[in-house]
Amino acid sequence: MQLAQVENLEGYVIAPDPAARRLTRSVDGFDHTGTRVDLSVVEERPLTIFLNSQEIVTAMTIGDYPDYLAMGFLRNQGMLGPQDMVTGVDYDEELETVVVRTARPTDHEAKLKKKTRTSGCAVGTVFGDMMEGLEGVQLPGSAVRTSWLYALAARINRTPSLYLEAGAIHGTVLCQQDKPLVYMEDVGRHNAVDKIAGWMMAEDVPAGDKILYTTGRLTSEMVIKTALMGIPVLASRSGFTAWGVEIAREVGLTLIGRMRGQRFVCLSGEDRLIRDVDPAQVPDESARSGRKGARS
Amino acid sequence: MQLAQVENLEGYVIAPDPAARRLTRSVDGFDHTGTRVDLSVVEERPLTIFLNSQEIVTAMTIGDYPDYLAMGFLRNQGMLGPQDMVTGVDYDEELETVVVRTARPTDHEAKLKKKTRTSGCAVGTVFGDMMEGLEGVQLPGSAVRTSWLYALAARINRTPSLYLEAGAIHGTVLCQQDKPLVYMEDVGRHNAVDKIAGWMMAEDVPAGDKILYTTGRLTSEMVIKTALMGIPVLASRSGFTAWGVEIAREVGLTLIGRMRGQRFVCLSGEDRLIRDVDPAQVPDESARSGRKGARS
Repeated sequence: MQLAQVENLEGYVIAPDPAARRLTRSVDGFDHTGTRVDLSVVEERPLTIFLNSQEIVTAMTIGDYPDYLAMGFLRNQGMLGPQDMVTGVDYDEELETVVVRTARPTDHEAKLKKKTRTSGCAVGTVFGDMMEGLEGVQLPGSAVRTSWLYALAARINRTPSLYLEAGAIHGTVLCQQDKPLVYMEDVGRHNAVDKIAGWMMAEDVPAGDKILYTTGRLTSEMVIKTALMGIPVLASRSGFTAWGVEIAREVGLTLIGRMRGQRFVCLSGEDRLIRDVDPAQVPDESARSGRKGARS
Repeated sequence: MQLAQVENLEGYVIAPDPAARRLTRSVDGFDHTGTRVDLSVVEERPLTIFLNSQEIVTAMTIGDYPDYLAMGFLRNQGMLGPQDMVTGVDYDEELETVVVRTARPTDHEAKLKKKTRTSGCAVGTVFGDMMEGLEGVQLPGSAVRTSWLYALAARINRTPSLYLEAGAIHGTVLCQQDKPLVYMEDVGRHNAVDKIAGWMMAEDVPAGDKILYTTGRLTSEMVIKTALMGIPVLASRSGFTAWGVEIAREVGLTLIGRMRGQRFVCLSGEDRLIRDVDPAQVPDESARSGRKGARS
């Protein structure tokens, strides 16, 4: 059902930990033949994020790296700027809360108050804010070798993960050239990306020389988050939306979709792509790899 | 790359319309060989939903059936109850807004005001409200024949759709016994379900004898929405989370996951399942059907 897993995690700063406590649970069911089966199933739990004294959002998450998730979420929503000094991040496992504290009071309270009065629900507000933050963003025109992309896809797809263990989860990987560095997974669609943003923030990692690889679809929100994080290349096994492509072209993001085996489509940044590998030499991915189809 | 499509749409009240104006756009890119390709890509556009004079949310959607999406969203969030008489739904294509009007003032304004003051962002609020609405819900113990499930999966996977045309989209189908009735698709994860809820509300369709089939994962939110809609059976090609299974068992929802070819797993409601087909007689699905993998 799946590609052989590579146990060698060399080069990874953070790799998935499929055996970690609390991330999966054994669930029983009955298969198509009526036989009782025990399955390893991913957890999904609420995590309420506070910024100082203000409750911001309840995210549905597998529950690992709550500190990075909280910081990355606040950063990607523009609620935590580069000028905000984080003085502490307190996670309470029992209360399922995480509080991010800053040196000076954040100005989001007045902002939220004003916006929620006009828009009623912060979902729209938050999205509006993200588009606002995008104005004037122009990513560095970093060259990307196709040999890196092929090496990344092959390595990532064979890295032991919750996806290979239990399915029903998205993965996002921060990479540099042909090396995956930080591989985050989550049930919530954008949580994996936010956890990477939080890690980059905490570790003060530069973005301009990085590549973001994701198993999920390249929607507008995924493209916007990547651009706001300053990462110039976004690649995915999955499909894309017309608006996602449009935004990528506007901000100069190199966008690669439907990457499977030797195949991919470059939707934006073709002139920054160095085609240093003959695709015919790349082994085609097994149709039974267990990974999502290219059209999804 | 995909199963032969069945052009016969007999029995469908609403079937996907892959050729519809405004749902897809031609996007150019370069494939792995460097050849320029033109691709049919799904649209993704904002739709701002108002309830009377109150702006509620901006959803990202492909844009079809904005009236059903708005009504279904408000219903599934508990903002529109069975006692609320909808007097009009006005969609403005240019402004990308849809306004749902009710005979008597809705009480969500005070509710939102109170909640946003304590929670800051309505995302958490909305979710909290959904869980609240679930208290005491107990679905009818309708029997389900496996022959229906196999027939539905086969028919739905071969029905011409935006998914088969352009990918990167979720599909959800309201069914009765072995017949698909309403097949909705959307880029936004829960929009397809909300559009079905809106249609059921507008047409006053009973839920107790229906089956909901989805291509997406069975997360807690998907299970909650189905239960709130009163539909006693939820089946998916994809995987599930532990909490999704837990909630399904609590409310008496029959939950079927990883349904592909002859395979499936029954996570909840095994005693309501009538196994009237020998799975060995069901043709296995082509590994190259273009549909998502069972583990996703």
